[in-house]
Amino acid sequence: MTSLDLTADVVTLTEQLVNIESVSGNEKPIADAVEAELRRLDHLEVTRFGNNVVARTSHGHPERVVIAGHLDTVPLNDNLPARRDEENLHGLGSCDMKGGVAVALRLAASMATTNRDITFLFYECEEVEEHRNGLKLLGEAHPELLEADFAILMEPSNAVVEAGCQGTMRVDVTSRGERAHSARSWNGVNAIHGAGEILHRLNAYEPRRPVIDGLEYHEGLNAVFVTGGVAGNVLPDACTVSVNYRFAPDRSEAEAVERVRKVCDGFEIEVTDSASAAMPGLGVPAAAAFVAAVGGTANPKFGWTDVARFRDLGVPAVNFGPGDPLLAHKQDEHVPLEHLRRAEQQLRSWLDPRIASAP
Amino acid sequence: MTSLDLTADVVTLTEQLVNIESVSGNEKPIADAVEAELRRLDHLEVTRFGNNVVARTSHGHPERVVIAGHLDTVPLNDNLPARRDEENLHGLGSCDMKGGVAVALRLAASMATTNRDITFLFYECEEVEEHRNGLKLLGEAHPELLEADFAILMEPSNAVVEAGCQGTMRVDVTSRGERAHSARSWNGVNAIHGAGEILHRLNAYEPRRPVIDGLEYHEGLNAVFVTGGVAGNVLPDACTVSVNYRFAPDRSEAEAVERVRKVCDGFEIEVTDSASAAMPGLGVPAAAAFVAAVGGTANPKFGWTDVARFRDLGVPAVNFGPGDPLLAHKQDEHVPLEHLRRAEQQLRSWLDPRIASAP
Repeated sequence: MTSLDLTADVVTLTEQLVNIESVSGNEKPIADAVEAELRRLDHLEVTRFGNNVVARTSHGHPERVVIAGHLDTVPLNDNLPARRDEENLHGLGSCDMKGGVAVALRLAASMATTNRDITFLFYECEEVEEHRNGLKLLGEAHPELLEADFAILMEPSNAVVEAGCQGTMRVDVTSRGERAHSARSWNGVNAIHGAGEILHRLNAYEPRRPVIDGLEYHEGLNAVFVTGGVAGNVLPDACTVSVNYRFAPDRSEAEAVERVRKVCDGFEIEVTDSASAAMPGLGVPAAAAFVAAVGGTANPKFGWTDVARFRDLGVPAVNFGPGDPLLAHKQDEHVPLEHLRRAEQQLRSWLDPRIASAP
Repeated sequence: MTSLDLTADVVTLTEQLVNIESVSGNEKPIADAVEAELRRLDHLEVTRFGNNVVARTSHGHPERVVIAGHLDTVPLNDNLPARRDEENLHGLGSCDMKGGVAVALRLAASMATTNRDITFLFYECEEVEEHRNGLKLLGEAHPELLEADFAILMEPSNAVVEAGCQGTMRVDVTSRGERAHSARSWNGVNAIHGAGEILHRLNAYEPRRPVIDGLEYHEGLNAVFVTGGVAGNVLPDACTVSVNYRFAPDRSEAEAVERVRKVCDGFEIEVTDSASAAMPGLGVPAAAAFVAAVGGTANPKFGWTDVARFRDLGVPAVNFGPGDPLLAHKQDEHVPLEHLRRAEQQLRSWLDPRIASAP
């Protein structure tokens, strides 16, 4: 088994984690290594569930926080092993999100006492279909393991709090026509030409930018796929534009569907995928205290993340992790060493047993 | 070997031909049967080239006509064996174009003398990629076998002359954009949205209907495929609309490209396929005489056919065959018995040795 050294500095530990390949579905080696190291630590109670590892302190504090990171990565893209330069660590998963996992593991190993109880969670299959998501499956099977007052998801966010998340919905919008031989096109109705009106409306759409808890979100309504055609000599009778609607946290999924339906009035629509948004929740005392402790800045999260899943579990959550989210899933993803060190330092201060936790 | 009876009536012979399955690439059995029967006939000189069979009279007439039909069909679609009712013969290839082949074989077998020399041609792979087309390959290898003053292609045309053919060209028109995560769509440029302008112009396009040799053609400019998209969470950076331009015979391929380029100004275009149109050529004496002999009516041919290939060989040609072209390639294709009998009768009269051929 590849081993990890939780006493190494956070950069070295990130490098070790990156070098254990863990593309979604292949998390067993990394979960084994994480579990083995955490089991050496007397102050943690460790539970294994699939390739998910939960490690909990039980100091008897009135407040408990979850610190969570996923162990999997998107597929290899000729970007292993890890490579370090003066400023960055490069390699698959360095940004999304083994840097964040390393920070969490450093805290788990080095803070035998803290001012809050902590539930560390390292989980599988975040990058793939929802029904395989480790956080979802664990939440369904053992919700008691995830009970907490607040959660920090170590998703890359430039080591600044990114609060809430926008919802995401995919809708197939279909234009219908009537087939005919393209040599006698006046006998049919061209469904691809008909889809021009859908694209026209998407082009004209003005996305909302609502301000919520002081944060400006930014919606988007975009075609992500278009397909149509039968044969090179046939007028097509159907054309489908797949639309991705990113909606701000003040809008429910039902409201989001209604919005798409209104824009696409007159066309068939079918919702193929939907995930609700999460309110930033910065009014929750634990969240406000955390933002204050890590620099006082919070930005809106535009992408969808598992903070919405914590919200569904009744746990307010924010994104806070090293790395630029724009680099996630890119071949040249990397994480600044400064982010790793700063995130560890700020969390360490916030959890310092010499500092009382927020009421 | 399945045998044919060229002394049977034209309906029975069509039924026999339909029942020899000959999907493109599998023409050997039907070509063998056709060749065997034609070789029994003393007035014909038979040449075999691949699965193409040429049978020529040599009466020494000053005029020679080609009567041609392809032996292949589109793929099976649960439409064999042939089925006959009061008015129609049903089954794969009955319309496109074994009815026409049967008419030609009847003439070949029963007219030992004619008022013109005749080159009968039965060829393979008309329904598939051009580089397999039997007429094309034979014309390249043995052009002398196809020398003639005039050609009749037995393509379904309701047993009325359809003159010339429109050209056909396929052009990929591509809209470019810039990828971005769909959660931050303002960082990119959506190429599918950009393709809306292409569809808008296609919708607005007014097709020409030029009158040539008294025949009204009818152009068409249609999207036949559209593709675009990278992933469900990515703004796409390319979207391609495949356009099929059907152009009238007064327009060259170069003029057709120019027309598409003008309509799609500002977008990338790539011609992926092109076949020239054929002028109706009804001014050619042999053609005019043929039209007069078969009822005096000629219609424009909207679809592309191998008459354009004859034109390239320097042989004026028309389409004239039993069957409704709108039924070609349909599962329920069929040919009216009346078409079969009329086409045979009209060609027989035109070739009657007691009637002098046109000067």
